[in-house]
Amino acid sequence: MSAPLSPIPGTIHGVGLGPGAPDLLSVRADRLVRGASHVAYFRKAGRPGQARRIAEGMLRPDVVEIAMEYPVTTEIPFSDPRYNERLSAFYAQCTQRLVALSAAGEDVVVLCEGDPFFYGSFMHLHSRLSGLAPVEVVPGITGMAGAWNATGLPITWGDDVLTVAMATLPEDELVRRIRDTDALVVMKIGRNLPKLIRAVAQAGRADEAWLVEYAAMPEQRVTPLAQASSVTPYFSILLIHGKGRRP
Amino acid sequence: MSAPLSPIPGTIHGVGLGPGAPDLLSVRADRLVRGASHVAYFRKAGRPGQARRIAEGMLRPDVVEIAMEYPVTTEIPFSDPRYNERLSAFYAQCTQRLVALSAAGEDVVVLCEGDPFFYGSFMHLHSRLSGLAPVEVVPGITGMAGAWNATGLPITWGDDVLTVAMATLPEDELVRRIRDTDALVVMKIGRNLPKLIRAVAQAGRADEAWLVEYAAMPEQRVTPLAQASSVTPYFSILLIHGKGRRP
Ligand SMILES: C[S@@+](CC[C@H](N)C(=O)[O-])C[C@H]1O[C@@H](n2cnc3c(N)ncnc32)[C@H](O)[C@@H]1O
Ligand SMILES: C[S@@+](CC[C@H](N)C(=O)[O-])C[C@H]1O[C@@H](n2cnc3c(N)ncnc32)[C@H](O)[C@@H]1O
Repeated sequence: MSAPLSPIPGTIHGVGLGPGAPDLLSVRADRLVRGASHVAYFRKAGRPGQARRIAEGMLRPDVVEIAMEYPVTTEIPFSDPRYNERLSAFYAQCTQRLVALSAAGEDVVVLCEGDPFFYGSFMHLHSRLSGLAPVEVVPGITGMAGAWNATGLPITWGDDVLTVAMATLPEDELVRRIRDTDALVVMKIGRNLPKLIRAVAQAGRADEAWLVEYAAMPEQRVTPLAQASSVTPYFSILLIHGKGRRP
Repeated sequence: MSAPLSPIPGTIHGVGLGPGAPDLLSVRADRLVRGASHVAYFRKAGRPGQARRIAEGMLRPDVVEIAMEYPVTTEIPFSDPRYNERLSAFYAQCTQRLVALSAAGEDVVVLCEGDPFFYGSFMHLHSRLSGLAPVEVVPGITGMAGAWNATGLPITWGDDVLTVAMATLPEDELVRRIRDTDALVVMKIGRNLPKLIRAVAQAGRADEAWLVEYAAMPEQRVTPLAQASSVTPYFSILLIHGKGRRP
């Protein structure tokens, strides 16, 4: 009796799904998602996950879904080393699951909102998968491109400088960055919205800023920051458009 | 005899084609480009134009092509007001052509490399078309996303700050920006490459920088900046990857 043949390892595809609309996936991403036998995606406990939402209606009826649920870390302060340890163990465990599927010969499509290499969680799997399974990444339209498209205005002209910053930065750092740029994108807003509103005001740019929620999704909403008190900032981006050279 | 009916005005679509690969157009862009009766695109005299190159093989055999050729401005210094006047007259004339087609009931797809609202020439038509013809913009995967995908490494992690700057900026301004950011993207390099190489070195980051030429195109080439003396910088992007928090 001969030993069982090991299958050809399957590929782990990190696939950018774009900002939200189902026809803003790339042709390459669309084919991979519709053909996938296995899809994996991150989500918070009790939430569908933005990437999984974008793929709704596109998956094979017999698809195997692997929901990677973030550990609840609300009781640990962000600065506590146990926060990072908990996340690190979680990413290691997700990696193991994907490596096992690859070893069994299965391709897996990891659904990623926007572009996988732009502030995405997939990167934490990508760095760990190296050497353990074949990995391919498909770039995507970023959430911020969906957001400036939603405002109907170009984000940058001529030789404008664009700064992309996360609302998780300290307030004085945000003020400095907002003062020192032509065009601005701020992501990961959530409960940092009050701090961000103060920082934009202190930088003297409150009248130029826009908040875009759920860009390219059915709930899309564009609000001048001055009127943003009613915004649920869960999935939102702040923009200041550049004003560069316009022949 | 009744007056001839005026047709329903056609729509001018500014369509982002992504960084270069034909399957990195969005599904929406792919449909518009393949179905177009009229396509328009910018090009330099004697060049095919990057956007037109990306659409090669996708157009209807009976498509009407409108090549919008930039006026030759090499004899006028960039700082001379006549430079801007010449360009402005050119954009106005392109706008007239598109408005006439719209008035005749024709839809026109304007082919744009990357994303139309991100340092794109289409913006100069978009602002002029307002009120004269219906306009729709389709976002695209940016050239820079193609470039960081080509390096196989994420551009930003955690709360990294990303700065996007044009190599046309003054050298001291480039040095300051390159020092003061986690991740960096520089575009419009061309004959500014020697200046850019000096600025990166002066900022102390020469060992971290990559040059990506023709991202997502058949001639794609990724070179550490330290070895970039042989680079033809015509269509290229400089990158420094961020090194933020990685649980
Ligand atoms: C973990 S980052 C992922 C970014 C993603 N990889 C991209 O390329 O856009 C999550 C942040 O992206 C932003 N975001 C992404 N897509 C968005 C959309 N369609 N509408 C609003 N915000 C979005 C939000 O600021 C959110 O906090
Ligand atoms: C007028 S800007 C247009 C940018 C475009 N709208 C985008 O979203 O990427 C032209 C510059 O884009 C950069 N670029 C765009 N696509 C590229 C690609 N595939 N490879 C290298 N550079 C690219 C180059 O730096 C070039 O000088």
